Amino acid sequence: MASDDHQRAVVLLSGGLDSSTALAWARREMGWECHTVAFDYGQRHRIELEAAANVARFMGVTDHRVIAVDLASIGGSALTENIDVPKDRHDGVAIPVTYVPARNLIFLSLAAALAETIHASKIVIGANVVDYSGYPDCRPEFLDAFAQVATLGTRSGSEGVPFEVVAPLLTLDKSEIIALGTRLGLDYALTRSCYDPRPDGMPCGHCDSCLFRREGFAKLSLQDPLPYAE
Amino acid sequence: MASDDHQRAVVLLSGGLDSSTALAWARREMGWECHTVAFDYGQRHRIELEAAANVARFMGVTDHRVIAVDLASIGGSALTENIDVPKDRHDGVAIPVTYVPARNLIFLSLAAALAETIHASKIVIGANVVDYSGYPDCRPEFLDAFAQVATLGTRSGSEGVPFEVVAPLLTLDKSEIIALGTRLGLDYALTRSCYDPRPDGMPCGHCDSCLFRREGFAKLSLQDPLPYAE
Repeated sequence: MASDDHQRAVVLLSGGLDSSTALAWARREMGWECHTVAFDYGQRHRIELEAAANVARFMGVTDHRVIAVDLASIGGSALTENIDVPKDRHDGVAIPVTYVPARNLIFLSLAAALAETIHASKIVIGANVVDYSGYPDCRPEFLDAFAQVATLGTRSGSEGVPFEVVAPLLTLDKSEIIALGTRLGLDYALTRSCYDPRPDGMPCGHCDSCLFRREGFAKLSLQDPLPYAE
Repeated sequence: MASDDHQRAVVLLSGGLDSSTALAWARREMGWECHTVAFDYGQRHRIELEAAANVARFMGVTDHRVIAVDLASIGGSALTENIDVPKDRHDGVAIPVTYVPARNLIFLSLAAALAETIHASKIVIGANVVDYSGYPDCRPEFLDAFAQVATLGTRSGSEGVPFEVVAPLLTLDKSEIIALGTRLGLDYALTRSCYDPRPDGMPCGHCDSCLFRREGFAKLSLQDPLPYAE
């Protein structure tokens, strides 16, 4: 593992497969000092907050914090409202009901505030365009524009240290992401991906997120360490 | 008052003098359907949340909501931490300790999420560069960049309706802002500007915000309807 104390990053960590792999990359491939942030935003799948804390501990982050932001009061998504999460969907509709309005914009903005406070200029996000091409806030042009606006709108930016948004998974498919994390020793049993887990926390196995995850493991002929509800 | 139901705006409303005037302009000068949003962000001057609700009611907004976002857990500002608010400051230091990291970026992001949910494309903000030239997130280049990133990062933007950030006070000084609001019938007794009010809610009269406000009224030979603590 490389080590460089001057390389400090804020990593968005949901506790899901993608963000956990992005953290593994930032810690173990790049050797950055990582400060992770999870968001308590009124999501139905709150078990991911526990997963985020567990993954952060496993990866030896400097600091993990949970920021509360009440997106449920804004509405507009199956992830915060009482709308059914789609199951066994293979139709590739452009933007699914699990889309949360402006979620990455909000999360990146809060990460930028934290980054400014702790003097980090890198923000790491597990966005990728392969499995989530329907989400506008995962596109590279959005991530680049965000780095610019955060640079313009902060003291650290106005004093000349530009923000950098780093998206190491941007062009990887799910199996490539899992292969990367596996090589870096990430324990995927700690991660949670399901949009609609059972009350006991067991993943449903049939929402978009479960389907992508299971296909990713299957393609690598690896066993997903998570048990599924069926 | 003009009326046009197709003109729908989300207005950032802190309950302070600037945002209240921006709302008066959007409602009474432009005749827009206004949805106001205030933020419960752990600020010490929480009386502004009551002021925002009162101003929203006075201005006949369609909907007023308070979104909770825990900026205090990020830290870095006298407005959320136990740092002394500067008093009787006339030294013009570039960025004061009352700066909250990335605050407008975060607030605009949440406003964009709400705007997307209610199908509004305008976001109105009381930013101005005259009295707050030290705040990077009040500059026009930041506001323009924000409109672009919100357009790129949302479903409504990706479907072709660009966001517009409207800052009607951008180049007005405090007395011009007060003159505008007074002409539009805004009752400034409902607004609150102080960064460090007394426990009974009375403004201190000496923080940056009180000083600018009082100078603005004095320049117009108008009486500020608020009582001050001294």
